[in-house]
Formats: sequence, C-alpha cells, structure tokens
Amino acid sequence: MTRPSAPSARSKVRRLRELARYDRSSVNAILDEATVCHVGFVDEGQPFVIPTAIARIDDHAYIHGSRVSRMLKQLAAGSSACITVTLLDGIVVARSAFNSSMNYRSVVILGSGEKVTGEDKKIALDAFTEHLIPGRTADIRVSRSKELAATTVVRFGLGEASVKISEGPPSDEKSDYESNVWAGVIPLRLQSGKPQPDPRLKPGISMPAYIGKRKT
Amino acid sequence: MTRPSAPSARSKVRRLRELARYDRSSVNAILDEATVCHVGFVDEGQPFVIPTAIARIDDHAYIHGSRVSRMLKQLAAGSSACITVTLLDGIVVARSAFNSSMNYRSVVILGSGEKVTGEDKKIALDAFTEHLIPGRTADIRVSRSKELAATTVVRFGLGEASVKISEGPPSDEKSDYESNVWAGVIPLRLQSGKPQPDPRLKPGISMPAYIGKRKT
Repeated sequence: MTRPSAPSARSKVRRLRELARYDRSSVNAILDEATVCHVGFVDEGQPFVIPTAIARIDDHAYIHGSRVSRMLKQLAAGSSACITVTLLDGIVVARSAFNSSMNYRSVVILGSGEKVTGEDKKIALDAFTEHLIPGRTADIRVSRSKELAATTVVRFGLGEASVKISEGPPSDEKSDYESNVWAGVIPLRLQSGKPQPDPRLKPGISMPAYIGKRKT
Repeated sequence: MTRPSAPSARSKVRRLRELARYDRSSVNAILDEATVCHVGFVDEGQPFVIPTAIARIDDHAYIHGSRVSRMLKQLAAGSSACITVTLLDGIVVARSAFNSSMNYRSVVILGSGEKVTGEDKKIALDAFTEHLIPGRTADIRVSRSKELAATTVVRFGLGEASVKISEGPPSDEKSDYESNVWAGVIPLRLQSGKPQPDPRLKPGISMPAYIGKRKT
C-alpha cells in the first residue's frame, strides 16, 4: 500500500518523519476527537497561539468566535494561519531521560481561512454544538439574528494538513534494555466527569440522556 | 486588593478581559499543571504551532527538543515566539448555543527565548523529567554527553505572561433562564490510566511507587 505523501513542502513533517501521515482519514479521525485546537496567527511579526473550539464538516475545519476578536478578524481576512490539534495519549517512561517522550496524535493544518456566511454559517454553528455535545441542537432554541451577527465563522481546507502519531512502548538504547529500571507507558485521556447541573436550573428539569453519553 | 495589570500592551488580554489575570502565582499554577504547551513561531511569514513538553523553573518556562529541529533552532536564535498552555476544565452547556462555551485555564507567554547551556541545561532537562514523572530522575542513569549535545534547551522569561480563567456555571440570557432546557457543566480532566509495563521489561522489575502516584 502506498501511503499519501506530503501535499506541499511546508506541510511536510520535518522531525521523526516516520510518524507522519497525510491521508484524509487519519486527519479526520483526530479532528473529530478534538475538544479544542490551538490557532496560530501573526500580528506585527509576533506569533499568537490561542485555544478555541474546532469542528469539521467534510473537507474543512471550522473556527468561530466573536466578530470583534482580533483573531477572528485576521482569520476572516485570510491571514496565514496554523491550526493544531493535539490528543495526548500517554507519557512514555523510557529507561533514559533522553528516550522518554509522549504518545500523542496531532494534526497541523496550514493555510488561509475563508469567512463562512448565510446558511453555511448556521450549519457550521450547529456543528460546533453537535461536535461537543451530540444531540444538543435538537434541544435548544435557534440562534437569534443578533447572535449570528456577533459571531464570525471561518473555515480552512484540509489540503495542507499533516498528521503525526506517536504510539506504543518506549524505544530505548540497546544497552539500556539491560538496566533494572522500570519502563512503560502511563496512559492519558481527557475524561468527562459527572455533569454538574446549573445552580439556576428550574426545578424539575432532569438531565437529558445525551449529556451523560458524551464521548471523550 | 489591586490585581496586577498587563505587563505590556501586546500581552494584554483582548477578549473577555474580566477573565484575565497577570499575577505570577496564577501563571505558575497553570504552567506547573501542564503536560504540554503549544509553541507558535513564524517561518517565512507562515505561523507554525507545535505541541511539546514544558517545564518551569522559577521565573522561566523551558522548552527542549532535537538540536536539528527547525523549531528549536529558531527559538534558540531568539525568534519571536508564543507559548500557550491550556488546561481544559469543562464544557459549559448553556441554554443557548451562543452562550455555550468551555471552562479552561490558559497561559499565553510572549517573547524571545534564550539558549540554556552547561550546568543549567542539565538542571532543566531534569526538570522536564521530574515535571512529568516526579521521582524519576533518582531512578535513571544520567544523560550521556552525546544525548546532551543532541538536545537544545531554550527558556522564556515570564515577564509577558497572561492568564485567562473561565470557570463556573453557564451565563445565559435573562429570558433563557425561563426555558425548560437542561444547563450545566460537563467537567473535563486529563486523567492518568493504569501504567502499562514495557513488553520488553526484564522479568522481576516491579513498578516503582512514584509511577502510580503521578498527579494529573
């Protein structure tokens, strides 16, 4: 099987290239499991990295936020950006500090965004809600015009997306396998806890099943 | 009590300023709980955002990596960077999509790094190990010269660090509190699972107590 190669020079993974993947299904699987992404943009030469929600529809990753935010203004204007999603899977406890590392799955998307408007904007906003809380949109009121107007939605194509996956047990120096020190992996997972009802919840409102079923 | 204000114009939080903090103890608490950070840097006008380990010693955040990595070369050369740490605490399920959000604690550090060498480099590398696995450095061999030579360590002052903390229940539109829809917070936490011994572990080596005690 031939694996897809990097779609562009700048999106090619530089370090530990053997961990790189460029196929769309690997990209999608990581984006669809993400709770947040980190968006990089440049303002007067200074890079900024801001955490925000992400949702995917088909071949695009979507970002949203306040219409007046500097980040959204820049992204909507088509500034160069980098969107990175990192899922942490474990701490790799090797027999040396040098070979200790982390297991993770990450996606790095390079490119410029395009502003999303009209019906597509409403579909995208629903996607954010459904991505974090599947089943929620059927339960809440529709967004008001002023709420839609206060929100900017930007989407990025996945044409320059790269994946890096680090998994499995430590890889140690040959001589270190003779050492008597423990080695292994401490798994990590972003886990949901017991939902906490809003103290201002009206009496008699019970938690819907979809809230407790949220995947993590 | 007067809370510290932003140390510089560019490090001032722009959006939701009421969530901002600039005191060093808030910065430290978040950095010390971090498993990874996301480093932003610019290469030929294109921002890149890369996840990597972070450790703090006193008034500096430390980053390390391969000597030949583009990121480490740039950081060691003093390029403008942004280091962001995000701890996700929950999904805020409001009565409208518009007011739904996330609870989080984040730190954004702006500035240029300085390369760390000599004894300070060894101290920093131990700090990465101890940060992720407290107790580990006493158990493993010291790093070899070639391992130290293959690794670059860069540190960033915390002078331009800002914190943003979003916590508590949803804040809904006044009229939405009359709605019959459930609202609350789904807590999120990066949790450690049961440590998995390396399949190549020599027989008879048991897991040290510090591995199981790792905080998350």
